[in-house]
Amino acid sequence: MKLSFTKMHGAGNDFVVIDATRERFRPTPDLLRRLGDRRFGVGCDQILVIEAPSAPGIDFDYRIFNADGSEVGQCGNGTRALARYVYEQGLSDKPRLRVQTATATMELQRLDNGLVKVDMGAPRWQPAQIPLLLPQAERYRIDTADGALEFGAASMGNPHAVLCVADVDAVDVEGIGRSLQARRDVFPQSVNVGFLQVIDREHGRLRVYERGSGETLACGSGACAAAAVGRLWGLFGPHVTLSLRGGELNLEWAGADAPVLMTGPAETVFTGEIEWQR
Amino acid sequence: MKLSFTKMHGAGNDFVVIDATRERFRPTPDLLRRLGDRRFGVGCDQILVIEAPSAPGIDFDYRIFNADGSEVGQCGNGTRALARYVYEQGLSDKPRLRVQTATATMELQRLDNGLVKVDMGAPRWQPAQIPLLLPQAERYRIDTADGALEFGAASMGNPHAVLCVADVDAVDVEGIGRSLQARRDVFPQSVNVGFLQVIDREHGRLRVYERGSGETLACGSGACAAAAVGRLWGLFGPHVTLSLRGGELNLEWAGADAPVLMTGPAETVFTGEIEWQR
Repeated sequence: MKLSFTKMHGAGNDFVVIDATRERFRPTPDLLRRLGDRRFGVGCDQILVIEAPSAPGIDFDYRIFNADGSEVGQCGNGTRALARYVYEQGLSDKPRLRVQTATATMELQRLDNGLVKVDMGAPRWQPAQIPLLLPQAERYRIDTADGALEFGAASMGNPHAVLCVADVDAVDVEGIGRSLQARRDVFPQSVNVGFLQVIDREHGRLRVYERGSGETLACGSGACAAAAVGRLWGLFGPHVTLSLRGGELNLEWAGADAPVLMTGPAETVFTGEIEWQR
Repeated sequence: MKLSFTKMHGAGNDFVVIDATRERFRPTPDLLRRLGDRRFGVGCDQILVIEAPSAPGIDFDYRIFNADGSEVGQCGNGTRALARYVYEQGLSDKPRLRVQTATATMELQRLDNGLVKVDMGAPRWQPAQIPLLLPQAERYRIDTADGALEFGAASMGNPHAVLCVADVDAVDVEGIGRSLQARRDVFPQSVNVGFLQVIDREHGRLRVYERGSGETLACGSGACAAAAVGRLWGLFGPHVTLSLRGGELNLEWAGADAPVLMTGPAETVFTGEIEWQR
């Protein structure tokens, strides 16, 4: 049968979006890999599936799959793309939406300028919530083959480690990223690794090496984690603009239990149909 | 307006195919870059445009653009994809087709097993035809920053240099590829650089660093050049199977003025529509 999809991106983080609000869609790992493969399939960082709500008070269920077929609980850029999709397709006209992922409820808001602001939830710092197998600290230090690494760690629905670096262009993102992800003695569910260069209290540059996808042009939840870790460490104020390779994201975090609010772009690139076996 | 396209691949060398047989399509460099971009657009190695024939004895005109917007005269994997597209869309039912690119007339043949055999034309060895600014030789030698390099060179409608290496997995494809492409004193129109590992007289492994696209999973004309250079150097017989990263290609070359015949797979991946400004 034919599967219809929409290709979108948010700051270069790109998505295949599938509307399963009317018809059930059970993705097999093979199909997800095919949708994610840039040469033998469609190609994207994540596959986003929007479904009818499974609980009261929720507008849509929202499932997020990496290109390798694994399901994740959070994708901030994807959530802006999802919001844009909902409004463009007329699936809702509510200016605020609540969506439910595998691990979190997310709130999002359409702004007058066409951008979407996503409530990414509060950063969670307790090691068991990340999960991280170290005693809780503002700064963690571990010894690796590359020497001692210092990082902050938070969950934004998925685990993030944030390293402060002098120059994001000069850092070995893949090498350090892979090396930290392989440390299952520290990060039992692996980890997304952010490399943050602080410019001033309101500006930074960020590169992120993601689980399942490798380095992406922009990781929304990684930007939230970096803004929160930067504030925790006294480097950022409550508003910060982070330049990622694919574009800019604005983050607001009032601290403590407040949610991180992320604002940024999302665009439809093309629509398509692919043959697949049910 | 909306532009319809079909995404295809041949041995992992991937294409956006556009049917301009009924309506004229004048691609702007911006549109071609957008079609070629894997995150902000559709994503492919080359954009293939099929047009009504501009000369007698030709079935279709066939234009080939790299993802950077430059037009090229030859793409063997693309020609198999084009043939498959023609048959799937019912644009022709002739078992043999003649198509005209910017620089060459190509003949192709539908086989009973669903594969397509493409007459890639005879390799041209004269330096002026490649173009190559060295006296004609079977083996060329130049000094580079990486030391002395030995290569064979031929035109298959586009310029190819072929280097024999002990292990294609161990060679610095990007480094040597870029370095040779930058030698405009030797290759005034740059060059596609093939790295050939000979296994026996009928088998080899090949990686190709292409002009405009970088390393691709499979370069059809590069496979022809490698088969011909390998035969010229006495390493291959008249039939050879080359394993490229994206799949296998079969090459036949009787030698001298005979054409190289290439057989291999081509598949439709999905169809799509993208908004663009005329």
